[in-house]
Amino acid sequence: MARSIRVLRVGQRYVRDDRTLTHLCLVSRALGAESIFIGDAEKDLVGTIDEVNRTWGGRFEAVLGVPWRKVIQDAKAEGRCVVHLTMYGMPLQDKVGELRAEDRLLIVVGGPKVPGRVYHQSDYNIAVTSQPHSEIAALAIVLHEIQSGEELKRPFEKSRLRILPSPSGKRVVET
Amino acid sequence: MARSIRVLRVGQRYVRDDRTLTHLCLVSRALGAESIFIGDAEKDLVGTIDEVNRTWGGRFEAVLGVPWRKVIQDAKAEGRCVVHLTMYGMPLQDKVGELRAEDRLLIVVGGPKVPGRVYHQSDYNIAVTSQPHSEIAALAIVLHEIQSGEELKRPFEKSRLRILPSPSGKRVVET
Repeated sequence: MARSIRVLRVGQRYVRDDRTLTHLCLVSRALGAESIFIGDAEKDLVGTIDEVNRTWGGRFEAVLGVPWRKVIQDAKAEGRCVVHLTMYGMPLQDKVGELRAEDRLLIVVGGPKVPGRVYHQSDYNIAVTSQPHSEIAALAIVLHEIQSGEELKRPFEKSRLRILPSPSGKRVVET
Repeated sequence: MARSIRVLRVGQRYVRDDRTLTHLCLVSRALGAESIFIGDAEKDLVGTIDEVNRTWGGRFEAVLGVPWRKVIQDAKAEGRCVVHLTMYGMPLQDKVGELRAEDRLLIVVGGPKVPGRVYHQSDYNIAVTSQPHSEIAALAIVLHEIQSGEELKRPFEKSRLRILPSPSGKRVVET
């Protein structure tokens, strides 16, 4: 199935979460999402992602300036399944079968402050363990599980550099 | 199989990577590792982890002050399989069968500056995609794959609080 997966960051704390947001963008890109909505984050981040695309391929997009309410509203209007990641949600392993049946998803990644309506407007509230850890790790495992690991084999088109996997060194070629 | 998994952080940049290190500790704990070696990081972090244990259970340990060379040396001396995570390594999906056969592992999580000898001393150099993303995400997926998802169901003993999974809210009970 050719799935369309988008990611939305909600509840970002400024400055302190800058690196977390960069990780979320890069994880979304590397693990098969097509875009991430990052609210009013620094424009620098869009430049960083564009540079990663030029070097390592693909057409992943970081989208600035769309309020999160509208991102969720638009997703629901087009029948996209909205999946909010929270340690309070239902265990991923119990719901992953249903999630795999969806061909269009919006994964909502909460920060420290997530408004209650995100819980109520989402089609699923999903927990990757009920323990506190990292929204970056939760996003990675959810993307990995929904795509059954197929995302690890995904090619990135039109890259400038490419890594040749190596058992004990670094091999990079220009393409 | 009752596996023993430990984690080692190498190549940390101070200050800037503080939150990354906190995420690495919490992910290791939540996803079934028994300890993480964090070099000379702030002592505060050990206190944070102890507090998480008291509240949410389990006996996960953050170990300060052991040089990474000694952590790797000790691991090899006791026959522990050393797995270094790097985007230059062999694809996880090609090696996960071999990794699952190991009952004692040390997962080495590189930071921006990883000495070459880490590549050579490791039994495996493993890539979670050959794309740049996040060491937090890579660690999460490797822990998840090695344990075949069983880590998501793991109980944490003697917690003060426990979450009751909920489809649309937050339910926490004292235990």
